[in-house]
Amino acid sequence: MNRIPVGILGATGTVGQRFVQLLDDHPWFQVTALAASDRSVGQRYADACHWLLPTPIPDAARDLVVQPIEPGLECRVVFSALPSGVAGPVEERFARAGHAVCSNAAAHRMDADVPLLIPEVNPDHTALIGEQRRRRGWQGLVVTSANCSTTQLALALKPLHDAFGLRRLSVVTMQAASGAGYPGVPALDLLDNLVPYIGGEEEKVEQEPLKLLGTLEGDRVASAAFVVSAQCNRVPVRDGHTECVSIEFARQPGADEVIAALEGFRGPAEAADLPGSPAHPIVVRREPDRPQPVRDRDAGRGMSVVVGRVRPCPVLHTRFVLLGHNTVRGAAGGSIHNAELLVAQGWVA
Amino acid sequence: MNRIPVGILGATGTVGQRFVQLLDDHPWFQVTALAASDRSVGQRYADACHWLLPTPIPDAARDLVVQPIEPGLECRVVFSALPSGVAGPVEERFARAGHAVCSNAAAHRMDADVPLLIPEVNPDHTALIGEQRRRRGWQGLVVTSANCSTTQLALALKPLHDAFGLRRLSVVTMQAASGAGYPGVPALDLLDNLVPYIGGEEEKVEQEPLKLLGTLEGDRVASAAFVVSAQCNRVPVRDGHTECVSIEFARQPGADEVIAALEGFRGPAEAADLPGSPAHPIVVRREPDRPQPVRDRDAGRGMSVVVGRVRPCPVLHTRFVLLGHNTVRGAAGGSIHNAELLVAQGWVA
Amino acid sequence: MNRIPVGILGATGTVGQRFVQLLDDHPWFQVTALAASDRSVGQRYADACHWLLPTPIPDAARDLVVQPIEPGLECRVVFSALPSGVAGPVEERFARAGHAVCSNAAAHRMDADVPLLIPEVNPDHTALIGEQRRRRGWQGLVVTSANCSTTQLALALKPLHDAFGLRRLSVVTMQAASGAGYPGVPALDLLDNLVPYIGGEEEKVEQEPLKLLGTLEGDRVASAAFVVSAQCNRVPVRDGHTECVSIEFARQPGADEVIAALEGFRGPAEAADLPGSPAHPIVVRREPDRPQPVRDRDAGRGMSVVVGRVRPCPVLHTRFVLLGHNTVRGAAGGSIHNAELLVAQGWVA
Amino acid sequence: MNRIPVGILGATGTVGQRFVQLLDDHPWFQVTALAASDRSVGQRYADACHWLLPTPIPDAARDLVVQPIEPGLECRVVFSALPSGVAGPVEERFARAGHAVCSNAAAHRMDADVPLLIPEVNPDHTALIGEQRRRRGWQGLVVTSANCSTTQLALALKPLHDAFGLRRLSVVTMQAASGAGYPGVPALDLLDNLVPYIGGEEEKVEQEPLKLLGTLEGDRVASAAFVVSAQCNRVPVRDGHTECVSIEFARQPGADEVIAALEGFRGPAEAADLPGSPAHPIVVRREPDRPQPVRDRDAGRGMSVVVGRVRPCPVLHTRFVLLGHNTVRGAAGGSIHNAELLVAQGWVA
Repeated sequence: MNRIPVGILGATGTVGQRFVQLLDDHPWFQVTALAASDRSVGQRYADACHWLLPTPIPDAARDLVVQPIEPGLECRVVFSALPSGVAGPVEERFARAGHAVCSNAAAHRMDADVPLLIPEVNPDHTALIGEQRRRRGWQGLVVTSANCSTTQLALALKPLHDAFGLRRLSVVTMQAASGAGYPGVPALDLLDNLVPYIGGEEEKVEQEPLKLLGTLEGDRVASAAFVVSAQCNRVPVRDGHTECVSIEFARQPGADEVIAALEGFRGPAEAADLPGSPAHPIVVRREPDRPQPVRDRDAGRGMSVVVGRVRPCPVLHTRFVLLGHNTVRGAAGGSIHNAELLVAQGWVA
Repeated sequence: MNRIPVGILGATGTVGQRFVQLLDDHPWFQVTALAASDRSVGQRYADACHWLLPTPIPDAARDLVVQPIEPGLECRVVFSALPSGVAGPVEERFARAGHAVCSNAAAHRMDADVPLLIPEVNPDHTALIGEQRRRRGWQGLVVTSANCSTTQLALALKPLHDAFGLRRLSVVTMQAASGAGYPGVPALDLLDNLVPYIGGEEEKVEQEPLKLLGTLEGDRVASAAFVVSAQCNRVPVRDGHTECVSIEFARQPGADEVIAALEGFRGPAEAADLPGSPAHPIVVRREPDRPQPVRDRDAGRGMSVVVGRVRPCPVLHTRFVLLGHNTVRGAAGGSIHNAELLVAQGWVA
Repeated sequence: MNRIPVGILGATGTVGQRFVQLLDDHPWFQVTALAASDRSVGQRYADACHWLLPTPIPDAARDLVVQPIEPGLECRVVFSALPSGVAGPVEERFARAGHAVCSNAAAHRMDADVPLLIPEVNPDHTALIGEQRRRRGWQGLVVTSANCSTTQLALALKPLHDAFGLRRLSVVTMQAASGAGYPGVPALDLLDNLVPYIGGEEEKVEQEPLKLLGTLEGDRVASAAFVVSAQCNRVPVRDGHTECVSIEFARQPGADEVIAALEGFRGPAEAADLPGSPAHPIVVRREPDRPQPVRDRDAGRGMSVVVGRVRPCPVLHTRFVLLGHNTVRGAAGGSIHNAELLVAQGWVA
Repeated sequence: MNRIPVGILGATGTVGQRFVQLLDDHPWFQVTALAASDRSVGQRYADACHWLLPTPIPDAARDLVVQPIEPGLECRVVFSALPSGVAGPVEERFARAGHAVCSNAAAHRMDADVPLLIPEVNPDHTALIGEQRRRRGWQGLVVTSANCSTTQLALALKPLHDAFGLRRLSVVTMQAASGAGYPGVPALDLLDNLVPYIGGEEEKVEQEPLKLLGTLEGDRVASAAFVVSAQCNRVPVRDGHTECVSIEFARQPGADEVIAALEGFRGPAEAADLPGSPAHPIVVRREPDRPQPVRDRDAGRGMSVVVGRVRPCPVLHTRFVLLGHNTVRGAAGGSIHNAELLVAQGWVA
C-alpha cells in the first residue's frame, strides 16, 4: 500500500519533534512536509531543529526543507503542533484547502462542530465532520485531540461512566515538565521544588471530559452531565502525568468491579485495529506503589494508561492513581491515532 | 532564668538532629542528654552522628557523650524521635520515671488519655494528662505531636472548622523525601519519578485530625465528626509537604471569608506567647503559583504554614493549596512547641 | 540455530535485571537459569524480583523458578552480577564445574590469568584462558568486564593510544545513580546535591585501563605504561556516566586528528560482527553542548560511547567529554558482549 | 554611625535580589536606590520584582520605587548586577558621575586599570584606582568581582600559590543552576541530565585567576604565570558550585602541608575585620565525601569556601574538591565584600 503523505505544522517544537519521531516507519503515513515559523523556513530540518529526543532524527526527516505554515504543502493529512494562540485561523485555512487537520492545539477543541476525539472513547463523534463541512464550506476537516491530562483521564473514565455512571469527580495532577515544551519551565522552579499551578490547565481538565464522554445526538454532541474538579501541579518529572482521582458514581461499585471494568476495556472494534491502538488501553497494576512515571509511562509504547491503587474513597466512592505518557498518548501519539481513525472510517482517502 | 534540662531519644537520626539544631540557643531549654541506640552509646555526639543538616553541629551538643535510651538521663523533658515501632514502651518507662515526654512518634498518638497536641489548635487537651497519671500511675507524662502531613493540615483546618464547620474533605499530598528519614527513599525512586504511596500515611492523615479538632469533654476528647480522604505521594523535594485540599462545610463560605478566617487566625492567647509560635501561624499568599516548597517552607522559621490558591471547588465547596515544613513544624519543631506549652501551663516545673 | 543456554547469578538485583532484559530475544543466547540469594530461591522470578526497569519482565523469564547460586544450573554460560564481596569463590566454583563465567564483578578483574575484556579493545586477551585452565585445572573459564567508568573510558582511549601513545591523563567523572544499584544512593544525597566520592571507584579507574590497553606477551598481559588520575562524583542522573577527560600523548595530535581517530575506530574485525557490537563504537558529536546523559546514553542501543567537545588542553594536550550507558555498555551489555566474543572465538561450543 | 546609602543596578534579577537580601540590616550600608529596566521603572519594588528567594522581601526595599539605570540615584556606592552585555558603558557613566561602582559583571574585569578584587586575596590591587581616575577623569571608581567559579577557586589558590608556587592546574566544575539566573536553564536540561558546557565560562576561569593572583607593580598588575585548564558543567543543583581541582606546584608539598596552608589562611589583616569576612575564609573537611552543595554551601553564611579530599595526584601534584556558594561569595556577597574593603581603605567616604 502506498503510504499517505502527511505534514507537520510546528515541526521544530517539542511536540512537533515527537510527531516526527512517532511517524518514522508508520505503516500508513509518510512524512512529506515539515512546516515551521519563518526563521526556520528554507533550512534542512536537521539544521533548523534543536532536536531534544533521545533517539536520533529519523533519516526521512533529516533532509526535508522546512516550509512556511501555509496551505500548499504536499500532503493530505496535516498534524498541528502549533501553539494554541496561533493555531485557530491557520488550521482553518488548511481545512478549507482540503487537508484533514488533526490538531493537538486547544483552539477548536470546544467548537460544536469539531470532534474532540479519542479513538477508543468516542470514534462516532467524527460524525460532526459532515456538519462542520456544511457550515464552514470546507473540503478538508479539523479534528482535535484533548489536553494531555484530559486524554488519559477520559480514557480511564470511559468504561466507568458506561458501567456505573459518573456523578462527580476530583482529580489532582502531578504533571511532567515536558508538557510545557522547551525551554518551558525553568530548572529553578523544579529543582527541590514543585509549582501548584499550570495556567489554563484546570479549566481544560474540568470541561473537555464532558465533551469526550458526551453523546452524539444527530449532528451535535450532548455534553455528559458529571462535574469535575481539577487541581494541577507541575512536578520534577520529565515525562508522564500522574493523577490522583476520586469519583462519585450513580451507583457505587466495589473496587473489584472497577478493576474489572478498567481491565476489560478494549474500546469499539473499529478502534481496536488501528496501528496506534495498544492491546490494553488501560493497564491495571496491583502493587501498592504503582503507577510511577519512570516505570510505567512507556506501557503500550506510551499509548496505554496505567491505573493503580484502586480502593474505596471515604468522601466520594472510589479512588485510584492514573498515569499516562503526556507527549505520546497525551499529544503527538494521540493525534496520529486520530488520523488513523479517520483513515479507517474513510474520511481520508 | 535557668534553662530547663532536656534530653533527646534517637538523637542521631534525622529528626533527632533537627531537635538538636532547633534547641540550640533555645530560651527555655538546654540540651543536657542525648540518647541513641547501642552502637552509638559512649561516643561523642559529633562522632556518633552522621550529621546531615546544612548548619554545623551546635557546640553545646558536639561533645556530649551519647547515652543509652533508658530512664536515668539528667533532664526533665524528653523529646522522643524514636521509630514508632520501638517508641511505645520506651516512652512509657520515661514517663513512669517522672519525665515529661514530648513524642514525635506515632505509638501513643491515638491513646485516649494521651494528648495529641498543637499549641495553637487544642492546648486545652493537656487536661488529659490528669487522667493519664491517674490511670497509669505516672509521675511524668506523655504528649504527642501529629504526623507531619496532619499537623499542617490541622492547623489550617482549625479556623475553618470553628467558622464554617467541616463536613468532609479530600487531601492529596506531595511529600518531601526528608519525611522518610535517612537513608529513606532511594534516589532511583525520586529522580525523574514520584511514588504515589507512603505506607501507613493515609490512615494517619484520615484519623488524627479528628482527635486534634475534637472537643474536650471532661477527661476525654470527643472526636470531631467530619470525614477525611487522604491520597499521599512522595515527590522529588527535600523539605516541605504540599497538599491540595478540597473541603465541604456545614455552611458554604465565600473565598474571601475563608481567606479572612485563615489570615486572622492566631490561636489561643496562651499559645501566642510561646517562643516557637510564629507571628502568623497561617500565611496566605495571593500569587497564582504559590505556595512552593523551596520558596515558602521557611516561612515563620518553618513554623508557619502557607496557604494559596483559595478558590471555590465545583465538587465540594472550597479548594486551596497548603504547604508546611515537615521536619520543623511537622516534627521536631512541633514537639518543642508542645514542650513550651507544657512549661507555660505549669506541667513542667 | 539452537540458542546457547545461559544463566544469571544475582538475577534479582539491578544489574541482574538488566541482564534479563538485554538477553530477551538475543539471537545466540537463551536464559534458562536464574540464580539469586536464599530468600528468593524457589519463587517465580516475577515474584522474587522487585523489577525496576521500564520495559516489562520478559515472558521467558517471568515464570522461571529462582535457583541457588551454586553449580548445577542448566546452562553453558554464566553471567555474574554478584556483589564483588561474594563473587570471587562462587565464580571459581562455576568455572571449575565447566561453565564459561562472564563476570561483571571486580573480584577477578586484576588476576594475571583472567582476561579483563572489551571485544573492540583487546579480544586477543582471551589467550589468557589457556594459562588460566592450566594453572587452575578448570574445564570452564572466567572472563571479566571492567568497571563501568573504566569501560567507556578504555573504549575511547584505545584508538588514541594506538595512534598517538598515551602518556598521562586526568578524568573527572559525573556518575549516574544506577551505578550504585538499588536501593543504592539515598534521595537526600542527590536532591539539590551531589557527592564528590564513590568508594573504591577511583582506584579502579586508575588501574583497569592499564590492563585493558596492555599488550599480550605470550601467556601474560604487559600493562600499558601511562598514568591515570581519576576523581569520581555521584550526580543526580539516573543512567549515563559523563567524564571530562584530559590527555597528554607521546606525540601531540591536532583536534582534527583526535576526532578522526575516534570516529574511524571500528575495533578488530572479529568484534565487528558480534550481535552486541554497535555500528559505531565511538560516536563524535560536534555540537558545543553534547554529550548529555538523557540525550546520548541510548546511542547504539546503549553500546556506543559518545564523545564531544574535542579541543586542545592548555595543561595537557587534548580535552574532551565522554558519555556511556553505565548499566548497558558499562555492565550487563558489556558482559553479554564478552560472551558473544567467546562464542565467536570458539571458547564456548 | 550613619549608614552609607547604596544603590543596586539590575535590582529585579536574581543577583539583584540577592544584593537586596544580603544588604538587609547591613551594618555599614543602607539601600536607598533600586534601578532596573524600563518596564519596571515607576513601580514599587515588591510589585516589579518576581521575588525568588526563600526569605521575604526586606521591608526596607519593598516600597522603594524602581528608578531608571542612570546616574542621579541617591547613593554613594552602586552595586551592578547588570548583564555583561550592557554593563560596560552604564558602569562608566556612574563612575564618571562620582559613584563607587562595585560590579559583578564581566565587562571591566580584565581592564588594566580596574581592580578585579577579593578582599582576602588582593586588597592592595585597589591601588589601580588612582591610575583609573587619572586616565579616565572619573570622580568615582569601578572595582569588579570575578566570575563565580573563579572567585572560589582563587580564594583556595591564594595560600597555595604563596606557599608552594602554582605552575599549572586543571579544574572541572559542576555548577549550580542559579548561576544562569532566572529563567536560565530549562528544567528539561537538568532533570535526569547535565550539560557539559557553559558559554564563555571556561575562558573566564582560565584567565581571571592570573589577574587576581597577580602582583601589583607600581600602577599595574603583573599577571601570575601559571596555566589553568577549565572544563565547566551545569548540574542539577540549585546553589553551590563544586570543583575538582588538580595542581602542579613549583615545589611539591605533602597533603598535610596543603591542608595546613588552606586552614591557616586568614588573608591580610585589613580584610579580616570587614563585616562580610568569615572567620575562616577556607574550611577544610576531613570526611571522605565532603564538600557537598546542600551541606556545605552555607558555611560562613555563604562566604567561606569548603575544601575536602585533599590528596596526592598521580598526574599533577595535589588534588582536592572545592565548593562555594555561587550567588553569595561568588556574586552579590563578593561585591558587597569589595565595597566594605573600599570603605575600610577610605575610597568611599
